[in-house]
Amino acid sequence: MTPFRGPEELDTPCLVVDVDLLDRNVAAMAEAMRARGLAVRPHAKTHKCLQIAQRQITAGATGLTVATVAEAEVFTAAGVSDLFIAYPVWASGERGRRLRILAERASLRVGVDSIEGAAMLAGALSGTGAQVLVEIDSGHHRTGVRPAEAAGVALATARAGLRVAGVFTFPGHGYGPDRRSRAAMDEATALDQAAQALEREGLEAPVRSGGSTPTVANADPGVLTEVRPGVYVFNDAQQGELGSCSWSDVALTAAATVVSTRGSQVVLDAGSKVLGADQPGWATGSGRLLDHLDARIVALSEHHATALFPDGAPLPDRGEVVRVAPNHVCAAVNLADEMVVVSAGEVIDRWPVAARGANT
Amino acid sequence: MTPFRGPEELDTPCLVVDVDLLDRNVAAMAEAMRARGLAVRPHAKTHKCLQIAQRQITAGATGLTVATVAEAEVFTAAGVSDLFIAYPVWASGERGRRLRILAERASLRVGVDSIEGAAMLAGALSGTGAQVLVEIDSGHHRTGVRPAEAAGVALATARAGLRVAGVFTFPGHGYGPDRRSRAAMDEATALDQAAQALEREGLEAPVRSGGSTPTVANADPGVLTEVRPGVYVFNDAQQGELGSCSWSDVALTAAATVVSTRGSQVVLDAGSKVLGADQPGWATGSGRLLDHLDARIVALSEHHATALFPDGAPLPDRGEVVRVAPNHVCAAVNLADEMVVVSAGEVIDRWPVAARGANT
Repeated sequence: MTPFRGPEELDTPCLVVDVDLLDRNVAAMAEAMRARGLAVRPHAKTHKCLQIAQRQITAGATGLTVATVAEAEVFTAAGVSDLFIAYPVWASGERGRRLRILAERASLRVGVDSIEGAAMLAGALSGTGAQVLVEIDSGHHRTGVRPAEAAGVALATARAGLRVAGVFTFPGHGYGPDRRSRAAMDEATALDQAAQALEREGLEAPVRSGGSTPTVANADPGVLTEVRPGVYVFNDAQQGELGSCSWSDVALTAAATVVSTRGSQVVLDAGSKVLGADQPGWATGSGRLLDHLDARIVALSEHHATALFPDGAPLPDRGEVVRVAPNHVCAAVNLADEMVVVSAGEVIDRWPVAARGANT
Repeated sequence: MTPFRGPEELDTPCLVVDVDLLDRNVAAMAEAMRARGLAVRPHAKTHKCLQIAQRQITAGATGLTVATVAEAEVFTAAGVSDLFIAYPVWASGERGRRLRILAERASLRVGVDSIEGAAMLAGALSGTGAQVLVEIDSGHHRTGVRPAEAAGVALATARAGLRVAGVFTFPGHGYGPDRRSRAAMDEATALDQAAQALEREGLEAPVRSGGSTPTVANADPGVLTEVRPGVYVFNDAQQGELGSCSWSDVALTAAATVVSTRGSQVVLDAGSKVLGADQPGWATGSGRLLDHLDARIVALSEHHATALFPDGAPLPDRGEVVRVAPNHVCAAVNLADEMVVVSAGEVIDRWPVAARGANT
């Protein structure tokens, strides 16, 4: 990443996207998955940004993944025609009505993980072309059914009048050191078992969707048909520490000003309201300073990041602008109204975070 | 808190403020501090909301505290005339120009914690009526100088042509079980020592500002002149678990729909993008379900909260709307564009989070 210009140009704290690195990340994922015969349906909850969605689609994405009806509305309104809401949407009331409007405007897939949820979806979506994917728990133990239970949910969905297109899972237990390849194996096993369970009941599962940035390199093309990585467009401190990217692949940072120093401690003006507060137990801190990888962010409050430098290491001066990779870039982007876009160290644009806060 | 109406009325997830409880919290703080002779300058970073600021001022607040120049701009534009930016603002470039405009429009106080920072402030604010408070580290070890160093910074500020109005501290080390009264003692000791250090140099410190929601009950009126609590207007799961409020004082919750259940596990549609991801080591989970205090939120992802219920406890049904107190309400509010306002269980209004994302 080329350092961007200093404090006179950027009102810190702000998020800065290096578009050259972003484009490289998008192209690399598209190429790697094309070579393995896997469709890419990027998760847009990471960037929430129309300009980035367009770049992913241009690079060959089959459509977008989103987490909420509201995110789907933002991207549909901008002309994206193929969307998967990878969530067991509870389609009651107003949410059901909004879902139906979406299905009339775009090719829509929605997740389901219960017979009750399928009935609600049928109430909202019957007669539209919307398709349903059954969510499978492959080891993350959040939403999703066990593979053996997939057929029951799929049959209920089909009997309620909706088309079941297949199965999906999120191998979120791959977010940990040395867990990535194991989680990818779990993902393939669970999707395969679930697809077979559907087939035994006379249902097909042409879509077997998995993937996440840490596990996608190990996604099994013998089972999966598509992957849904999100973070890869930017990468972040978590992915760097997990080893699923190198630090030179980090395309989004927060520009932060040093406001206070004492001894080997430096305080920056980017806190949890800019970086997000996500911090898994294995993370070494609350984000990483890309130009000072030896430093650790040992404390984060709303408007302060406290970084400790090794004894004797040169410290940035008060007033200096430094680059911080957030731990979890999806959380950081969702805090910002816009991202400053740089190319070769120059600010060239500002992109709105169009679906910021689109949680409903 | 009176439960609000169900899923047909509220598009979950969303933040809901019980205005009756909010008004009770505002009045109780105003009355308690008035009885002890302490001015209240509430921290508006908690609510970022004009309607709530107005209620605090009507209840007798001497002005508002804010964390950033951008927050000050939002409240000044709405007519708030007395603001303290309790932060060692680095007043370079555009930020310096914005600060000067603020000082010309409102009674403005700004924090400082270094001689270099004082020089920058002087460049931006000389000739305005702005006042400066020296930030003191009373034990939180973030920004601020040691009490003995306060005179040096104050003298540099005064020599640069700015008026020093006193000293302030944030006893953030009081955010922990059994640490509140000790942190309040540290706060008073540090402010007293710093004020004396200024007086030895011929400077006065008429303002001695401290306080935070967990420590304000123990704020020492023999030393302090004002307190800056923020969270108290809403309270949150952290304050409940610290014992600085009771659960019936929690005025803001996220309304969340149960989307998935399995065994004693319930998954809600309010995740870290609604509740925020703050979770100190002593917290028992990632927020609390106010109607199910025995349950614990054991995992939080962007759009899922996973709650475990005790064996045999009745679970809410899929589709049911439950109330979740965020761990740290300041983080939750900053994720929302608006808050749904209820009174006696009825939705009566929606308040914009006017200063959401105002970080610069």
